[in-house]
Amino acid sequence: MIIIRSISRMVRVAQQARRQDKAIGLVPTMGALHAGHLSLIRACRRENDITVVSIFVNPVQFGPQEGFKKYPRTLQQDARLCKREGVDIIFFPDAKQMYPDNHRTFVAVDNLSEVLCGKSRPGHFKGVATVVAKLFNIVSPNSAYFGQKDAQQAIIIKRMAADLNLPVKIKVLPTVREKNGLTLSSRNVYLSDQERKDAVVLSGALNLAKGLIRRKVLDSSRIIKKMARLIRTKKTARIDYIWIVDPDSLRPVKRINGHCLIALAVRFGKTRLIDNATIK
Amino acid sequence: MIIIRSISRMVRVAQQARRQDKAIGLVPTMGALHAGHLSLIRACRRENDITVVSIFVNPVQFGPQEGFKKYPRTLQQDARLCKREGVDIIFFPDAKQMYPDNHRTFVAVDNLSEVLCGKSRPGHFKGVATVVAKLFNIVSPNSAYFGQKDAQQAIIIKRMAADLNLPVKIKVLPTVREKNGLTLSSRNVYLSDQERKDAVVLSGALNLAKGLIRRKVLDSSRIIKKMARLIRTKKTARIDYIWIVDPDSLRPVKRINGHCLIALAVRFGKTRLIDNATIK
Repeated sequence: MIIIRSISRMVRVAQQARRQDKAIGLVPTMGALHAGHLSLIRACRRENDITVVSIFVNPVQFGPQEGFKKYPRTLQQDARLCKREGVDIIFFPDAKQMYPDNHRTFVAVDNLSEVLCGKSRPGHFKGVATVVAKLFNIVSPNSAYFGQKDAQQAIIIKRMAADLNLPVKIKVLPTVREKNGLTLSSRNVYLSDQERKDAVVLSGALNLAKGLIRRKVLDSSRIIKKMARLIRTKKTARIDYIWIVDPDSLRPVKRINGHCLIALAVRFGKTRLIDNATIK
Repeated sequence: MIIIRSISRMVRVAQQARRQDKAIGLVPTMGALHAGHLSLIRACRRENDITVVSIFVNPVQFGPQEGFKKYPRTLQQDARLCKREGVDIIFFPDAKQMYPDNHRTFVAVDNLSEVLCGKSRPGHFKGVATVVAKLFNIVSPNSAYFGQKDAQQAIIIKRMAADLNLPVKIKVLPTVREKNGLTLSSRNVYLSDQERKDAVVLSGALNLAKGLIRRKVLDSSRIIKKMARLIRTKKTARIDYIWIVDPDSLRPVKRINGHCLIALAVRFGKTRLIDNATIK
């Protein structure tokens, strides 16, 4: 396994691999790797000749109060995990290389970026789309791997890749959870014991919704109300949003009659967690 | 020479050429080819194994009243010219393929896009940057060729390619002019005889500025005033802007002391023409 810090070297290595007709898979991460990332890395390894894990805490996707500085940075441990998983390359550029002072170009995916998490985090998805477009151009992967946990992100990246004719297959893998249902997230380290206990209510609320839908309760606002009531039983929980939306347009669905995405964001103390379920 | 209308076929043909280590050159055009385009095509032919000319009148770079519909479309003549010049591929996609109904992604180059032509044409350069990013991803050229006539466009495309780490060399070739100094432009066909005569004043005003600078008149506002006075001697001329700017930041330069770009846009009747000169 090699760690590449220079963009130009990463480009050279990737171009050489492509010329040798090797399939490159990319797992873009912000580091602080957990079992969710590892499931992406394993899928990437199965389907490609070369697995690149990018580790870059992307400043432009954080709002001013969103904890860019305190985001966990654990390169040594990440590198150990990657090596164990058989990763070929860690791409670990610094922010000055990725965003030199005269950087002025941004990629925006309109309509999809202003709702759900985009409403609470203005500019977030513009930052995500921009860095992912850059990473795709640097690493030139055949396939790139994202988690279903960040459902809106996956939808936006898919739309961006299609719209900009980026020659990359976007693969979205299932959310990895603890036994109690809590989704794995690098932000879980911020939770106190009580908050961590309370946060289990997110998957509980999604299961409640699924149960209601199975029992033919199809009115979104009724389902959302019941979910909210359940979440509010937890003292440390403060709901940011609960939405039931069309998974292509992300527009709210009033009455469920086909594919939909149930997405929620809830703060536990200062930590904002997200979760979602898709209904077919 | 082949004409490719399908994006997916263009991608396949380009990928195959790249695998054979052939250098691809792209000349992005909106058709209505003239000697300015031909000079780009010749440079492209000299420097690459495969020359692709894209012809696409890009709807998203036209404002509502900016003549998208009446823009000259002359495919048969363009194809004849391209064939004569030894072009390998004309890429001629339709708007529905380039912008399907669910297209939502745009590339914006902040700061550089809102000044000069961007001020008179809001959204124009977002449309340009978006379509050029798409074309780069579809054709995957090693080099792409643009005219110095569209100076701001060339600066924005260079910035975009660098910022998004697009692996394309941007080549900018000198403006081609008629003997009388008028820049070649597909829009010249709109000019009446009188307007065409008057439009020669643009290069005249740029020459006036260059002469002043040679004689050490370095105050931008004084130069601009003299240029404006000259242009206003032509009855059909209505000045949109005259600016002297830094060629990297496009910020106005008060006093000339190094590289600068003198750029102007003037309407003759209903036709808006641009021209520029660089001072070293």
